Amino acid sequence: MPELFTVVTPQEAWRRLQPHLYPITRVVTVRTEDGLDRVLYEDVVAPSDLPAFARSSMDGYAVRAEDTYGASESLPAYLTVVGEVAMGREAGISLSMGEAVLIHTGGMLPANSDAVVMVENTRCLDAGTLEVYRPVARGENVIPVGDDMAEGDVVMEGGSLLQPQGIGGLLGLGITEVAVYDRVKVALISTGDELVPPEQEPALGQIRNTNAYSLSGLATRIGAVPIRLGIVKDDYESLRRAAEEGRRVADLVVMSAGSSVSTRDMTAGVIGSLGEPGVLVHGVSIKPGKPTILAYVDGVPFFGLPGNPASAMLTFELFVTPAIYTLGGCKRIPGPCQVQARLRRNIPSASGREDYAPVRIEEENGELQADPIFGKSNLLSTLIRADGLGIVPLDRSGLAQGEFVVVRLF
Amino acid sequence: MPELFTVVTPQEAWRRLQPHLYPITRVVTVRTEDGLDRVLYEDVVAPSDLPAFARSSMDGYAVRAEDTYGASESLPAYLTVVGEVAMGREAGISLSMGEAVLIHTGGMLPANSDAVVMVENTRCLDAGTLEVYRPVARGENVIPVGDDMAEGDVVMEGGSLLQPQGIGGLLGLGITEVAVYDRVKVALISTGDELVPPEQEPALGQIRNTNAYSLSGLATRIGAVPIRLGIVKDDYESLRRAAEEGRRVADLVVMSAGSSVSTRDMTAGVIGSLGEPGVLVHGVSIKPGKPTILAYVDGVPFFGLPGNPASAMLTFELFVTPAIYTLGGCKRIPGPCQVQARLRRNIPSASGREDYAPVRIEEENGELQADPIFGKSNLLSTLIRADGLGIVPLDRSGLAQGEFVVVRLF
Repeated sequence: MPELFTVVTPQEAWRRLQPHLYPITRVVTVRTEDGLDRVLYEDVVAPSDLPAFARSSMDGYAVRAEDTYGASESLPAYLTVVGEVAMGREAGISLSMGEAVLIHTGGMLPANSDAVVMVENTRCLDAGTLEVYRPVARGENVIPVGDDMAEGDVVMEGGSLLQPQGIGGLLGLGITEVAVYDRVKVALISTGDELVPPEQEPALGQIRNTNAYSLSGLATRIGAVPIRLGIVKDDYESLRRAAEEGRRVADLVVMSAGSSVSTRDMTAGVIGSLGEPGVLVHGVSIKPGKPTILAYVDGVPFFGLPGNPASAMLTFELFVTPAIYTLGGCKRIPGPCQVQARLRRNIPSASGREDYAPVRIEEENGELQADPIFGKSNLLSTLIRADGLGIVPLDRSGLAQGEFVVVRLF
Repeated sequence: MPELFTVVTPQEAWRRLQPHLYPITRVVTVRTEDGLDRVLYEDVVAPSDLPAFARSSMDGYAVRAEDTYGASESLPAYLTVVGEVAMGREAGISLSMGEAVLIHTGGMLPANSDAVVMVENTRCLDAGTLEVYRPVARGENVIPVGDDMAEGDVVMEGGSLLQPQGIGGLLGLGITEVAVYDRVKVALISTGDELVPPEQEPALGQIRNTNAYSLSGLATRIGAVPIRLGIVKDDYESLRRAAEEGRRVADLVVMSAGSSVSTRDMTAGVIGSLGEPGVLVHGVSIKPGKPTILAYVDGVPFFGLPGNPASAMLTFELFVTPAIYTLGGCKRIPGPCQVQARLRRNIPSASGREDYAPVRIEEENGELQADPIFGKSNLLSTLIRADGLGIVPLDRSGLAQGEFVVVRLF
């Protein structure tokens, strides 16, 4: 019973699935301050200028630039200090020729002033007289009206992730609510006659279901809502019922498809039977994770992931994570955090497949070093000890000690 | 009024603060499945072996290895198939010499078997007779008892972050609850006579408070609880009252310290007056972010961050983020996600300070390219458009087009 699949590269696998993926249509309004890492549904336009008034970017004196032209250490300009701009207040003063006003960083420029002399380039002779040692150009040390955001500007595009600086930017404009895509619902189905729930004591021959929880963690981290549909027996009718329920309750269905060839083939059969176009990929040239199924069935993406914990997590991150981002409306999918590290030992592999080997990372003399963790690469304990997965490219039959390896950090 | 500080490098600044930081003592128990990204309070020890029985790692036949010795394509070994191991069941069979049992990946090895022959290396002659073409060694294709985790092993150490694989690992052992450090409470105080809350229409001279919300986002992302204490006027007594409240309600206090020299000096004065040892650092050789204050006052870390949004966010990430992790019990602080990218334009800088310049990242021909965003580096709109901050090291007076720059991704 050899497994019936044609292996494709991970790039080709994604290329087959990607054109079928569209953002969900559910939109919700959230308070901007609660919108961290949500995806904006539509372009956000600045309702007004930010700043709404010209501000000083330095501590110093607001002046008319022309009054300082030619000023130098040996031949300072002399100005008359006619007041101080209080923070948070309208300047309330209009400058005449030869006048200056004390101003603080962020203060509003008085009428008729057009530049700020830094305090370091001045000296007060007495309460009313200021020496200026350097000339300023018009606009120098001034943040003009609308310099950060101008009224009518698209501040953030629909499909952007709302990061902390975005929250600040929107609130700076007084935008206290935003429309965002709803969270993507991910159904997680665990299959296997040997599985019992974590809280149950397994009998001999049984093991506890862990994949549903590890994969829930991966989904949660990127803002999706995992819906665990429990453990399903390895028979066609049970699988099919679970798959149907999955597409009814979620936007995307992940089946952790058991570890034997026969159950994986059954999973492919069930998914294929649900609708069109059905199974798009069955087999990817990666290790671990070869027997991965990518499918699209009547508007719902389906994933059949291998049952081994390491395979399930890796294939989730390679294929399900970008699918969740796409369904969630995200136009620029954040890549994984990858670093380069120098290998402390060889990683053997085989040409023609992409290998992911657990490594531990250490910094030594300012350079990252990667120690492959061998022997038990598919076990949870290995993943727990590792900091990430070192990638051996498709066209390499291993990487040698001393070479750089790209490591996908957990 | 030149600012009264002695600038130190970011490394030296952290070196001064770090010895004062200890984990908080509040511990809570959470369901393991809800423990994503929490920090374990104590070592977790495996209560039993995982797996609890020897399992097959392949689809094939459980055999006594010695019965296959010498087998080859031309001279196969002949074994008698005496049954099948059902998934999730005790094998219920004991092998005698010359016998084999059909087994699936994850199935429990029958008594007296010690290896599994992959199905690819066999052929069934009839229902009861199996040809084996390759010998297997003892233990081959078998996951022995306790191979993933052995009873008594420390599975995860106290101070570890609970990642998705850790959740899977603990649940695999039936550990459904864990003790974790409580979330770190971060008080955020915004100071400035010019600030109004985001929902309020600012008068001329006023701007909306944004830092408290951007910094809340940064705190939330790493699992801390931001406590916004609102806007405080720039006078000594108000600042002092707010600082006192901060240390009463939180584990760590961040004061976004206004943008003018005088308010920053006042912040340092207030923090210094609260207790010992007081201000440890006032001034860091970074841009933006030079006038940063790090302090430790009677058991509570205090941070005075510059009021400019870009400076506030950067200095939060450089100093407050690792402090939060340390207070939160985390022994191995996750570094920022940094990538190397080729510069498309020069980044000017000055030797003797670490410069952080907003850049946009693009992939081109498999290589990351960094486009510096010039002109408005301290504005929120620039941070929103950027993908991260390119770092010009302390000892460089800029980086040239074509050079690699390390980019700290948002």
